[in-house]
Amino acid sequence: MPEIVAGQYPSTTQRGGRFVCAVGLVTWVLTFLPLKLHADDIITPESAAHAVALRDQAMRGTDALAIVGALTTEVGPRLAGSRAESRAREWAMGRLSDYGFSGVRTESFSIEGWERHGERAEIMAPYPQPLAATALGGSVSTPLEGISADIRMFQTLDALKAIPDGTLNGAIAYVGHAMQKTQDGSSYGYFNEARTRGPSIAARKGAAAYLIRSIGTDSHRFPHTGTLRYADDTPRIPALALSNPDADQLERIALSGETVTIHVWVQTATNIDAESGNIIAEIRGREAPTEVVVIGAHLDSWDLGTGAIDDGAGVGITMAALKLIKDAGLAPRRTIRLVLWGAEEVGLLGARAYQERYATSLSEHVIGSESDFGGGRVWQVTADSQSERGDRLFAEIARILAPLGIAPGSDDLPGGGPDLSPLIESGVPTLRLHQDGRDYFDLHHTADDTLDKLDAAALDQNVAAFAVFAWLTADSDVSFRDSGD
Amino acid sequence: MPEIVAGQYPSTTQRGGRFVCAVGLVTWVLTFLPLKLHADDIITPESAAHAVALRDQAMRGTDALAIVGALTTEVGPRLAGSRAESRAREWAMGRLSDYGFSGVRTESFSIEGWERHGERAEIMAPYPQPLAATALGGSVSTPLEGISADIRMFQTLDALKAIPDGTLNGAIAYVGHAMQKTQDGSSYGYFNEARTRGPSIAARKGAAAYLIRSIGTDSHRFPHTGTLRYADDTPRIPALALSNPDADQLERIALSGETVTIHVWVQTATNIDAESGNIIAEIRGREAPTEVVVIGAHLDSWDLGTGAIDDGAGVGITMAALKLIKDAGLAPRRTIRLVLWGAEEVGLLGARAYQERYATSLSEHVIGSESDFGGGRVWQVTADSQSERGDRLFAEIARILAPLGIAPGSDDLPGGGPDLSPLIESGVPTLRLHQDGRDYFDLHHTADDTLDKLDAAALDQNVAAFAVFAWLTADSDVSFRDSGD
Repeated sequence: MPEIVAGQYPSTTQRGGRFVCAVGLVTWVLTFLPLKLHADDIITPESAAHAVALRDQAMRGTDALAIVGALTTEVGPRLAGSRAESRAREWAMGRLSDYGFSGVRTESFSIEGWERHGERAEIMAPYPQPLAATALGGSVSTPLEGISADIRMFQTLDALKAIPDGTLNGAIAYVGHAMQKTQDGSSYGYFNEARTRGPSIAARKGAAAYLIRSIGTDSHRFPHTGTLRYADDTPRIPALALSNPDADQLERIALSGETVTIHVWVQTATNIDAESGNIIAEIRGREAPTEVVVIGAHLDSWDLGTGAIDDGAGVGITMAALKLIKDAGLAPRRTIRLVLWGAEEVGLLGARAYQERYATSLSEHVIGSESDFGGGRVWQVTADSQSERGDRLFAEIARILAPLGIAPGSDDLPGGGPDLSPLIESGVPTLRLHQDGRDYFDLHHTADDTLDKLDAAALDQNVAAFAVFAWLTADSDVSFRDSGD
Repeated sequence: MPEIVAGQYPSTTQRGGRFVCAVGLVTWVLTFLPLKLHADDIITPESAAHAVALRDQAMRGTDALAIVGALTTEVGPRLAGSRAESRAREWAMGRLSDYGFSGVRTESFSIEGWERHGERAEIMAPYPQPLAATALGGSVSTPLEGISADIRMFQTLDALKAIPDGTLNGAIAYVGHAMQKTQDGSSYGYFNEARTRGPSIAARKGAAAYLIRSIGTDSHRFPHTGTLRYADDTPRIPALALSNPDADQLERIALSGETVTIHVWVQTATNIDAESGNIIAEIRGREAPTEVVVIGAHLDSWDLGTGAIDDGAGVGITMAALKLIKDAGLAPRRTIRLVLWGAEEVGLLGARAYQERYATSLSEHVIGSESDFGGGRVWQVTADSQSERGDRLFAEIARILAPLGIAPGSDDLPGGGPDLSPLIESGVPTLRLHQDGRDYFDLHHTADDTLDKLDAAALDQNVAAFAVFAWLTADSDVSFRDSGD
């Protein structure tokens, strides 16, 4: 195996097969393992050896894809607050109980549910034709007859912001953008303001309805939904997203200088007393069970696709990681807690409910990480350690992950996934396993988010990373907090 | 330009830009042109030089993409017999008149029109969820309440054929397949029988409705429509196609052994006196105007997409080729006739109308070729010449096309595009410019068939090939028929 050298771990897809990978692993383990067990005051040699074994076992294949397959097939779309999200909780409870975890439970909470009943958009003039459009999550309905109006085009949200309030006179406001693919998904935070805040900005300008180019990077006729946030002080207007090819079409026509008239029709409903819930499963700590390492993903999805990349992948990765540790017969010093968050897509409602429920014990949450960026491979690991011992444990984690192609990053901002935001507010440290998300916004929040888009070997690499992280942080006594030094 | 050698024409996308291409062209023309003007009894040196100049001009850029852009934007979807197809004819008449061609005209005919009003499919049990489905073209409606029934799964149409008649007892029959991508599209002819003949075969077996895995090679949630052909002696049952990911989902559930119950709802309408038409434009022959070389494409499209690859691309390619010849100020010996066929998708109705209208003059149709396989590059040219002089002219055409990466093929079966089938029946020879169609059935008959999928440089290569073919065959006195020797 001349191509296998220490520190270079062959991915199964890069090398073309599990057999080569497995042989490589053996070679690698024999030659490399003894070099790295040297931080005994942070982790024991036994603990480090277990981490390496978990990693290597994961790379030989995990249950991650099978778990995502079951969730997306047996439940399918699972909108927050819906009967389908409830079925997803039943599904998760059944699986996690079958796997034999401790403390498997549902923690319910109430939300205001929203449902899509129907939507349609078409160009009336100058060139009549249908448009592929979808209502944004939370959009109010149009009148039953829909809304027909001329469109006013804005290349960016800033261009819409720049016009005086009340000057759109009942036009339909359109906002475009030029979002590009990025590996780290960083442009999403900037561009999705057009979706979240755009509807109320347009209403303030006098628009009767709001239309955006999908916040997405593909060129297929799938509109991307996603939540909007109406401001309290402006009328609520219906809001839709066009697929990128339809946005191109509309912009081409508008560029010709002709007045474009659009018809939009949206019917939605809200249920002020819908139920959602978080699902919990644990491997209970052998010495310090009240100290908790949190891993997880969100269980709800948008209603258009089956939520394979968002966030079935995360469910599969983190559930398989916990199962891997349990199946290895390992008992960590601290508790590893898997949280499958409910109602993430509609505003991190499960994460808020968790924060509230565990307010008095969050000081014992050691560190957390969520998987919520699809099924691509992890290429970087970062953490917001605030202690010297935390930094050293992070370095050990990074060293054990390096053969997977994962480099430690210098960015130590808090992060680790959207559902950790409330925990970060409460002072919980986080670690982030950065996935390659170049294709993530091709599929995100579309009908095309389905199982066929996932790659088993890439999921396995994620499982390896989560298992190593969860095991090492839970099997140590290291605190990542400032006070822990 | 050391990488440019005679006979190897750099494609613009392969070399990365028009500038490099143009420079290469000049080099190439200077070094290669004198070698090939040697078949004076077939074509004159002047005629061959014009062909080379047309080819080289096309490779510097044509109007093809702009034409497709205008058709798909200003008309959009244009279903046979619809008001939109009528607008497409008005659009074409305007363009062709503006270009200054001779004999620009519409030749109308009546058809039975079909319209899609709505469709829906969902799994009711065991795992309720919506399915991405579309009615096949020509499908009858379900009752207003839809049809709910258990599904019976067949991996292939042959498996459905093999069961005894009348044994499905009102189930919904599902037929899958494993169609793979091919460069020449050859597997479509085999697999699309499941779409065209499947509905009546299922009805004969006792099915209440018929569902297929889309005849397509993508993995996106776009169902592929396309025409069905009901048999006269069986009840007409509603028929739909599932997108490939939805077919995967259904097959996964069925494999678990559970009974799957489906609900389908289809509403369609027919109009027994709809209008369609062919559009004609010509460059009139200077010596033998009644001898006709036919090029063209079909103007209608399915209703789901804007028909950019099927067959806006062909319209752009062949219209741009005729314009290229006209703009060069060339007057061929014979007439070059562009035919934009109407109502192709619903059974070659425009081609049949043409055959009938020109029955007495088809003996003077020299040769024909249609562009109806998307926007991919041409990689092969074949012809069904039946004369020695025809063979030699074909060899000259192939030699001038070789620098475009086009090789002469040995397959001399009649072909040249679906709308030429009636002309082939009437004895008209054909030439086929084989396009690379590996991605064609990813988009074919879906909502995703839109302008953004086309590549300008690839269309230009097609224009070059059509211009060379049309010019050389029209500017000669060669017959490709048996009697012409």
